[in-house]
Amino acid sequence: MSQSQYEELTRQLVQISLLGSCGSVLGWDEQTMMPPKGAEHRANQSSLLAGMVHERSTDSRLGELLNDLEQSGEYADERPESANVRDARRRFDRATKLPRKLVEEMSRVSTLAQHAWVEARKKSDFSHFQPWLEKTVALKREEAAAIGFADGGVPYDALLDEYEPGMSTAEVSAVFTPLREGLVELGAAIRNSGIEPDASIITRRYPIDAQRRFSRFAAEKIGFDFEAGRIDEAPHPFCSGFGPGDCRLTTRYDEHHFSGAFFGTLHEAGHGMYEQGLDNSYYGTAMGHSCSLGIHESQSRMWENFVGRGRAFWEHFYPSAQQEFPEALGETSADEFHRAVNDVRSSLIRVEADEVTYNLHIMIRFELEQALVTGDLSVTDVPAAWNQAYRDYLGIEPPTAADGCLQDIHWSGGMLGYFPTYALGNMYAAQLFNAARRDLGDLDAMFARGEFSPLKDWLNKNVHQRGMQYSAGRLVEIVTGEQLSHEPLLAHLKSRFEPLYGLA
Amino acid sequence: MSQSQYEELTRQLVQISLLGSCGSVLGWDEQTMMPPKGAEHRANQSSLLAGMVHERSTDSRLGELLNDLEQSGEYADERPESANVRDARRRFDRATKLPRKLVEEMSRVSTLAQHAWVEARKKSDFSHFQPWLEKTVALKREEAAAIGFADGGVPYDALLDEYEPGMSTAEVSAVFTPLREGLVELGAAIRNSGIEPDASIITRRYPIDAQRRFSRFAAEKIGFDFEAGRIDEAPHPFCSGFGPGDCRLTTRYDEHHFSGAFFGTLHEAGHGMYEQGLDNSYYGTAMGHSCSLGIHESQSRMWENFVGRGRAFWEHFYPSAQQEFPEALGETSADEFHRAVNDVRSSLIRVEADEVTYNLHIMIRFELEQALVTGDLSVTDVPAAWNQAYRDYLGIEPPTAADGCLQDIHWSGGMLGYFPTYALGNMYAAQLFNAARRDLGDLDAMFARGEFSPLKDWLNKNVHQRGMQYSAGRLVEIVTGEQLSHEPLLAHLKSRFEPLYGLA
Repeated sequence: MSQSQYEELTRQLVQISLLGSCGSVLGWDEQTMMPPKGAEHRANQSSLLAGMVHERSTDSRLGELLNDLEQSGEYADERPESANVRDARRRFDRATKLPRKLVEEMSRVSTLAQHAWVEARKKSDFSHFQPWLEKTVALKREEAAAIGFADGGVPYDALLDEYEPGMSTAEVSAVFTPLREGLVELGAAIRNSGIEPDASIITRRYPIDAQRRFSRFAAEKIGFDFEAGRIDEAPHPFCSGFGPGDCRLTTRYDEHHFSGAFFGTLHEAGHGMYEQGLDNSYYGTAMGHSCSLGIHESQSRMWENFVGRGRAFWEHFYPSAQQEFPEALGETSADEFHRAVNDVRSSLIRVEADEVTYNLHIMIRFELEQALVTGDLSVTDVPAAWNQAYRDYLGIEPPTAADGCLQDIHWSGGMLGYFPTYALGNMYAAQLFNAARRDLGDLDAMFARGEFSPLKDWLNKNVHQRGMQYSAGRLVEIVTGEQLSHEPLLAHLKSRFEPLYGLA
Repeated sequence: MSQSQYEELTRQLVQISLLGSCGSVLGWDEQTMMPPKGAEHRANQSSLLAGMVHERSTDSRLGELLNDLEQSGEYADERPESANVRDARRRFDRATKLPRKLVEEMSRVSTLAQHAWVEARKKSDFSHFQPWLEKTVALKREEAAAIGFADGGVPYDALLDEYEPGMSTAEVSAVFTPLREGLVELGAAIRNSGIEPDASIITRRYPIDAQRRFSRFAAEKIGFDFEAGRIDEAPHPFCSGFGPGDCRLTTRYDEHHFSGAFFGTLHEAGHGMYEQGLDNSYYGTAMGHSCSLGIHESQSRMWENFVGRGRAFWEHFYPSAQQEFPEALGETSADEFHRAVNDVRSSLIRVEADEVTYNLHIMIRFELEQALVTGDLSVTDVPAAWNQAYRDYLGIEPPTAADGCLQDIHWSGGMLGYFPTYALGNMYAAQLFNAARRDLGDLDAMFARGEFSPLKDWLNKNVHQRGMQYSAGRLVEIVTGEQLSHEPLLAHLKSRFEPLYGLA
């Protein structure tokens, strides 16, 4: 009885995913290929598909099937089928709890808010964006109230749950606080070390054709399958998994900045290898879906930072880099280069931040977002609060709003609750990387030999193939034997940066 | 009363077009961008969208609206609104008259038949394709019976009507017969002229980067708007208009063949300029849609042949060509080059045929298709009949089936009734080109000066903006004052080739 209902449920979920994935193709094309005059027609196409996905996601038949399956009592454990039913319920509830009017208003406001944000950022004029951020915050509060949250929780939980299912604001705060202390301490030690790498190595001339070739070479070498994906250029780097066998990465090139495109490509390839590693037999259901944004980010940051900025990685890749970029690197040693790609210093722009200070940028946003949702912070006061936080956390102050509270796209798109997943990803990455080392042995020796498949295969098996069977926290616990913690990340950062800066 | 029903009808038609255009994006991506392992997922996406388009196209509400609008008596004239209602009826009838089982079977058979055709062509073994062509012909007969045709007509009419609405088999035959006589005569005169251009000019080395630049330059110069479109590479050249502001062209490059990519690009740009010239305010309805495949082909062939292979065109472009291809063309005169791109000789492969013999390839297919549909020709006898026709029409015989009846993809995809539109396009092109010259004056003098916008603007106004307001035959009559005729095409060919071959 419940078997046939389960099958009907999954059939419907597969159709919804398929339809959504058509929208992903259109979205990718819009960012990479579409000619400028196609924008209006593309908006009409995408809006039609989004409406159809929403219609199918809120179909009352889904609700009936879920009720029946839940009442059968057969889907309350940790089996894959139970995970699929549980996540289908979560999505169905999120979709149906939001009044249609609110969904339409959010869609309308976010389109207009993004235009206003682009303008405001260009002019570095917060007042241009302010009314739109006010509307956005008001709508996100309505959304949080409509979605609801667990007893003892806060409205921000409802927003966070969209990106990091099962994670609460309190749990995030509990790890962010000690992480912040450790990061501030490490950052101060680095600043006081008196050592500064020659960061100008990174801004020499790196011809774009060679960058394109070299970063693709590295992405392929670490395990991104170009028979099941591709890489193109876009104004904002991203990864879009369309479904089985097709995952698209994007990056952007700057002739005078090596790190942006190269580490950006490793980062997106890390996301892409997660998508490519999903269990296709579960396509359309939770078991065939990435676990959370935090876990997704753990994959991209692991390949970008834990692997890609490690000395062992460059033991293997530096000779090729010198061949590709003889003008920039011909006379530079691997050690000098490695120190340059690990330059730590307080900076204004999150996406350009180093591994140590990056998480402080995240915490600032997390705190401001919570205050906006509770109402403790009014939108008018955001620029002042932002600048104060940068002084407190990083010891610097943005000279303009464009370099300050207008730098990120997220708020204009209504994505409140998203930022914490970046820092969670860094912590998960450290924990998973430790577990991989525990299971596989000397990873650095493998990387130095150009062997990346042991780590990739391990991630396939321990993370990717498990889909959403567990929440992110539970997955990490199962794989590593530990609960979410800031300590492995701090330990990783110390072991990397203390030697580079002659500390301890 | 009928106004609100008309609006509801057009709203539904717009939605159907929008959804169909999402499928076009996926189809384009499949041919140009998709990594190989994405094929199965793409098939699932496309099939879902196609099913949804079919569902909406056969929605009984459409039928009710059409009945009401027709009964109102207000939509029986040549006004744009009436054309929209009339064509909506034609499409609705075609969609609803076909039993679902037949549609599914045709879709299934065509997928398998195309695989079999690829194999058969590779091995040059017709027997491998034969059973699939038998199934296809049987299904097309069923389709013709289900669709029906006018009194005194033949089943082939029903197939032709899909591509060239309103045109009958008898009308096609009535122009093909005298056209054939004229072409055979002109071809014989050329063969007997004793003059042969140096065709080897075309197969010198033309570096692909320069071909890409030069053909794009020419496409832009004749009027294709790259702000509203783009060109990429694909195994089979095509043009796909996604909708307002977005039209995609493809071509393919061969370092040792100038004409393929260059004239292929002009050809596809001609299709593209038609799509870009449609009246966007009518998007989704017949008035915003190209008139017929024959008229579409008249646009591509006009820019490719009437304009692009003319001496005046090269008066303007040859200096740039010599700059781009100094090795191939540095020592070659414009006249020699122009003769080489107008080399006429009987050949086996339709898509490589010159302007004179091309239409004979079409007539062979048209006659065989009719005989297959009536049953006068059995599929087993296709290779022999094909070869006999090539001896009769072109004086040559294919040495293999791959160079003979297996060369085209159309039959494997169930596209019987499509071929005649290619030759109709050539005739329409000649008639429209004459009318443009009548209205605009000395076109050659304009082309020699690099002025192509007068012709493009004329086509926008007289052809593109009229959409499907009239049938193809009626459109040509309104624009040119003449009915469909073979004579202007023959006159064009004589005026071009008689001087080149020292005739008359």
